[in-house]
Amino acid sequence: MTTAAILVIGNEVLSGRTQDANIAFLGKELAALGIALTEARIVRDDTDAIVEALNALRRRHAYVFTSGGIGPTHDDITAAAVALAFKVPLSRNAEAVRRLRSRYSADDLNAARLKMADIPEGAELIENPVSQAPGFHLDNVFVMAGVPRILQAMFDGVKGGLTGGPPQVSRSLTLLVREGDLADGLTALQNRHPQVEIGSYPSFTEGRSLVTVVARGADAAMLDGVMAEARTLAHSLNAAVLDG
Amino acid sequence: MTTAAILVIGNEVLSGRTQDANIAFLGKELAALGIALTEARIVRDDTDAIVEALNALRRRHAYVFTSGGIGPTHDDITAAAVALAFKVPLSRNAEAVRRLRSRYSADDLNAARLKMADIPEGAELIENPVSQAPGFHLDNVFVMAGVPRILQAMFDGVKGGLTGGPPQVSRSLTLLVREGDLADGLTALQNRHPQVEIGSYPSFTEGRSLVTVVARGADAAMLDGVMAEARTLAHSLNAAVLDG
Repeated sequence: MTTAAILVIGNEVLSGRTQDANIAFLGKELAALGIALTEARIVRDDTDAIVEALNALRRRHAYVFTSGGIGPTHDDITAAAVALAFKVPLSRNAEAVRRLRSRYSADDLNAARLKMADIPEGAELIENPVSQAPGFHLDNVFVMAGVPRILQAMFDGVKGGLTGGPPQVSRSLTLLVREGDLADGLTALQNRHPQVEIGSYPSFTEGRSLVTVVARGADAAMLDGVMAEARTLAHSLNAAVLDG
Repeated sequence: MTTAAILVIGNEVLSGRTQDANIAFLGKELAALGIALTEARIVRDDTDAIVEALNALRRRHAYVFTSGGIGPTHDDITAAAVALAFKVPLSRNAEAVRRLRSRYSADDLNAARLKMADIPEGAELIENPVSQAPGFHLDNVFVMAGVPRILQAMFDGVKGGLTGGPPQVSRSLTLLVREGDLADGLTALQNRHPQVEIGSYPSFTEGRSLVTVVARGADAAMLDGVMAEARTLAHSLNAAVLDG
């Protein structure tokens, strides 16, 4: 299985000011490409923390995506940290400057904005159709913006170049049942289908206990079979099927 | 500064099925206790991944909180993984069984539910006022449920025992300005106040570019001073102040 990690960079995500949306987005997109997002880390705007996490992740995943810290302000330190992690110089990238010039007048293209054209040497730019300031990729690391709309546009531009396995799909079924009543049957179901990843997610709504059973894998027919068995299990427990 | 990490355990968060809410919750709660949440990791329901991440985090943070994987089903493997990480046996905890008995009849307390009373030896239980199945803490690690309502109730029960520094507070100001126009002034502001953490967060609404400036620290009067300077900076740029 081809695996990927995401490194989210930003004090605001850890402080609770900003709710991350990029991990869930990439998890879904990568699954459709047959790439499993198996790890995520969130670190502060701290050079040492970024370097350490990036070096750990890029050595054990086929792909690493970073989000955040590539803007014009003092707390945007991702490009410099990535250069350090790869031990390459950070330098002004002529093509990145050209893209910024397409958006900003000469007067507006001040030193702060030009900082967004400082890119680790050897990196290729990632297009930013929203605000021009590019991301970049270097080896197996893709450096993208933190603003979800921009990250999503950047990912659209790079996903064609990623190589995964068969797309991972899922099926789910929500049952009116207490999880502890379902557990034994679900364990047996998982044991009968070791190639399918079966998850059990309890929730509580209006005083009722619900469980959503999720099956994931590359073989849609096999998932449908698992869901049929889950329906039979629900029937044997007199558990109503609420959706799926 | 006292630091903490959170380890979120669950395939569903990485697949994008479930949007994590526990990181932001703990970030805010810990800041109020003078503890900085400086790192978060999300791993799959995979014993090796949990053990490795937990051992890395517990050695470098004053506190580590985990969320997820303590229910009755086959994919709930957190307690066993924590026991492995600490190299202690996992055994049936009599007090945990007693708490489960307070909720479930003898008939309902099946093997799957009793699994929730298997706790690493030496751990102390964390009360679960919602559904009784306890969390636990061992050394500096606090193991809690993934369901936000239960995690929040568990955290309420343990936070009195945590030791932090002065509470961290924040002030923010949203300006109608492009981030690149604000950047130089903001860098100067940060340089004048090295003890305050100043963040700059752009957003785009109805075609307008906004920046929220956030100042964090332990000294509220100093933060108010920073915000006053940020207002002066906004005025010098003809940038309207939208709130704060």
